[in-house]
Amino acid sequence: MERALKEITPKSQDYSQWYVDVATKAELMDYAPVKGFMVIRPYGYRIWELIQGFLDARFRATGHQNAYFPLLIPESLLMREAEHVAGFSPEVAWVTQGGSEALAERLAIRPTSETIIGAMYSRWIQSYRDLPVLINQWCNVVRWEKATRPFLRTTEFLWQEGHTVHRTEAEAREEARRMLGVYRETVEGELAVPVIPGVKSPGQRFAGAVDTYTLEALMGDGRALQAATSHFLGQNFARAYEIRFLDEDGQLKYGWTTSWGASTRLIGALIMVHGDDKGLRLPPAVAPVQVVVVPIGTGADRERVVAEARRVGEALTGFRVTVDDRPEYTPGWKYNDWEMRGVPLRIEIGPRDLARGQVVLARRDTGEKTVVPAGDVVRAVGETLAAVQRGLYEQALAFRQAMSRTIADVEDITREGGRGFFWAGWCGESACEDAVQERTGATLRCLPDEAEEVEPPGSCLVCHRPARHRAVFARAY
Amino acid sequence: MERALKEITPKSQDYSQWYVDVATKAELMDYAPVKGFMVIRPYGYRIWELIQGFLDARFRATGHQNAYFPLLIPESLLMREAEHVAGFSPEVAWVTQGGSEALAERLAIRPTSETIIGAMYSRWIQSYRDLPVLINQWCNVVRWEKATRPFLRTTEFLWQEGHTVHRTEAEAREEARRMLGVYRETVEGELAVPVIPGVKSPGQRFAGAVDTYTLEALMGDGRALQAATSHFLGQNFARAYEIRFLDEDGQLKYGWTTSWGASTRLIGALIMVHGDDKGLRLPPAVAPVQVVVVPIGTGADRERVVAEARRVGEALTGFRVTVDDRPEYTPGWKYNDWEMRGVPLRIEIGPRDLARGQVVLARRDTGEKTVVPAGDVVRAVGETLAAVQRGLYEQALAFRQAMSRTIADVEDITREGGRGFFWAGWCGESACEDAVQERTGATLRCLPDEAEEVEPPGSCLVCHRPARHRAVFARAY
Repeated sequence: MERALKEITPKSQDYSQWYVDVATKAELMDYAPVKGFMVIRPYGYRIWELIQGFLDARFRATGHQNAYFPLLIPESLLMREAEHVAGFSPEVAWVTQGGSEALAERLAIRPTSETIIGAMYSRWIQSYRDLPVLINQWCNVVRWEKATRPFLRTTEFLWQEGHTVHRTEAEAREEARRMLGVYRETVEGELAVPVIPGVKSPGQRFAGAVDTYTLEALMGDGRALQAATSHFLGQNFARAYEIRFLDEDGQLKYGWTTSWGASTRLIGALIMVHGDDKGLRLPPAVAPVQVVVVPIGTGADRERVVAEARRVGEALTGFRVTVDDRPEYTPGWKYNDWEMRGVPLRIEIGPRDLARGQVVLARRDTGEKTVVPAGDVVRAVGETLAAVQRGLYEQALAFRQAMSRTIADVEDITREGGRGFFWAGWCGESACEDAVQERTGATLRCLPDEAEEVEPPGSCLVCHRPARHRAVFARAY
Repeated sequence: MERALKEITPKSQDYSQWYVDVATKAELMDYAPVKGFMVIRPYGYRIWELIQGFLDARFRATGHQNAYFPLLIPESLLMREAEHVAGFSPEVAWVTQGGSEALAERLAIRPTSETIIGAMYSRWIQSYRDLPVLINQWCNVVRWEKATRPFLRTTEFLWQEGHTVHRTEAEAREEARRMLGVYRETVEGELAVPVIPGVKSPGQRFAGAVDTYTLEALMGDGRALQAATSHFLGQNFARAYEIRFLDEDGQLKYGWTTSWGASTRLIGALIMVHGDDKGLRLPPAVAPVQVVVVPIGTGADRERVVAEARRVGEALTGFRVTVDDRPEYTPGWKYNDWEMRGVPLRIEIGPRDLARGQVVLARRDTGEKTVVPAGDVVRAVGETLAAVQRGLYEQALAFRQAMSRTIADVEDITREGGRGFFWAGWCGESACEDAVQERTGATLRCLPDEAEEVEPPGSCLVCHRPARHRAVFARAY
């Protein structure tokens, strides 16, 4: 009755195929009938719900409220902010027919909602007393992408987008920075993914932003992934959408706006940062199942070990626990299956363990097994899960550090194999930024907020004139 | 500095305008730039989140998992179930352009997801061991409606749609019934809206269903609203989308499916069932703010009453409390404003109350005021909120009972003024059902599961032949 184990292509053999194998075989997602679209299956969606929970609590704690704005945006409204239009209109899906009527004006499925939210804010905001407006929306967006990859880049994806309006530039900049901090707490804290916070170069900004702040993470193949972004939009959208307020001094002024977003792409980061040849490895904070209890025993033993497994499962209140007592699968099959699904901790209970009043804990991250007295299991599980959470973060950080180089010349990127983060000096000219991409495929990920161990050289990696910034380059998803 | 109070049209003067006034002025929603679309503002969205919380917990408790399926459905896929197509295709919004490319096949924005979910289930289900499949999705849907009304009927709305597959007809019917029960618990329990559960007549079924179960609620103007529906789909969708499984007996069989949904329309029901000329009246279970504490006092008193208001606010842990100590508004203005927003309970604290060690509780549902010792406020608030929750339900139930008639002839509907629920016998012929609608505007809401106080007559209200069913008729939203 046992089904064949699902094979995963080794990482070293074909990273892309490994990624897709993990995403599909761990049942995080499946491909949809329309190219570029995916289904997020219950196991993957549960991870998203857990991520949502952490983010949403932090959004509320920083004074934000959720709301919902329309999916469809009239073309004329989308077109009001010139840079925004240029950035997004090539990616828009258009509705041209509603029921039996051809629409007089075509409607964009939102690629992001600055435009329609701006139009509403313009109505709602009159006085400085109405500020700040701090609203977030959880929703789907559509961007017509040519090349797609599960979670990382799909035509439709789920995300949240925060949109705020402030009285002063300083407040808006502070907000954009604060939300980058909220993302960092979540991505490093719960997703156990170390990130480099920084600011994008002008060439990599969000279309219409004055500054884009970003979190850059390193995937297991040495490519970078933008984990979340927060934009200081200046008065660009306020002017385009007439978001004005009467200030205390009696002057009519434009508001200062921000927007910030994180998406289901984070699930892709979880796969690529933590996964191994056995499949997923989930940080306990975002694991749908944190502990699987597997009873081991046949015949006369079975009933006793199953009873003990259930007792242990019930004792573990406050954890997300599954007792896998399915008779049709062997323990070995179950180990592999739950390892593939990334469950951080397995508890094995066999007849000998029963006799000795003990259980065996097996960590997914290290494979390490520990024998624990049955009476001590709750404490041990709590401690071990905390250790797995820490361990995954530390392992990812060590990997990133090993994959980070300080370089003096653009050719060093290729010389070093092109994988990882390359720290360098940059003169600030887009010509030099472009040259890096043309010669190496790497892009300027950010101007990092903090230096890593060593300061990069004081000259630009391309023109070798004095550097105005330190910059991090990488080939990216 | 005080803003003008927002005026609400009296219910008795113009019910439709009253409804829109409450929805907009309590800031539940606003109209969007595209006709038929609305924005759900933070206060309204918070109500939705609270409703979601109750429903989602019950979905999980009955074994369901959440997932996410694509927004866009290829036309060919949408068209496979004939009755479904006929029901929905007139309402579909079509995407015909993606980025710069005209699409080879146009894509429907989901009006509901049986079709695309069916296509995925067909891939995922092979064996009886894969059943039941119990999945729910929270999402937006679009139906191109001609006449729209905030929350009740909008072109886009938010909802959840459950989609399940079962091995046997009996299990699927049981599931459809179980979920109707889940809706009833939530709508009656937390929304305090009494409903009549029953089954739709063939003419009122969901397109493609074998049976549609419904909850029918009575609004404040005597019109009915379908609060939630649950569909037993038989094997119709399983056949159209090839959802088959190998049963234990070695036979390849079609699954039996259900679907069930509830939407943001429930917020419309809250307004219309409980609202009054002052605005909203929210049941505490779904009130974003359950208690508002208003300090009353100027000059030297202000500091002391504000401090006490904050102390009381902090003591009320476990409740959703706002302390309204804004200096720029008078207590009277605040009372009106929070009453409009439907906050179930107000606590007033003035200098005299402070001196006497007491607070005043004012119920939104009855207007009743009670003086309570300050030390007793937590207990009193808990009890009073429970009383408001019960009181709103009982008032709505009493209204429905007063508005329910047993009638022997279709003309009684008009004779009685056409408002309310009309219980009657029905022969089961669609001709008689249609005749009721043509002559009175009332539709057959459901064949109720349980009789109200009295059994309706044993003959059809139109043809006067022996009744095969008892039926409830009403003019409906």
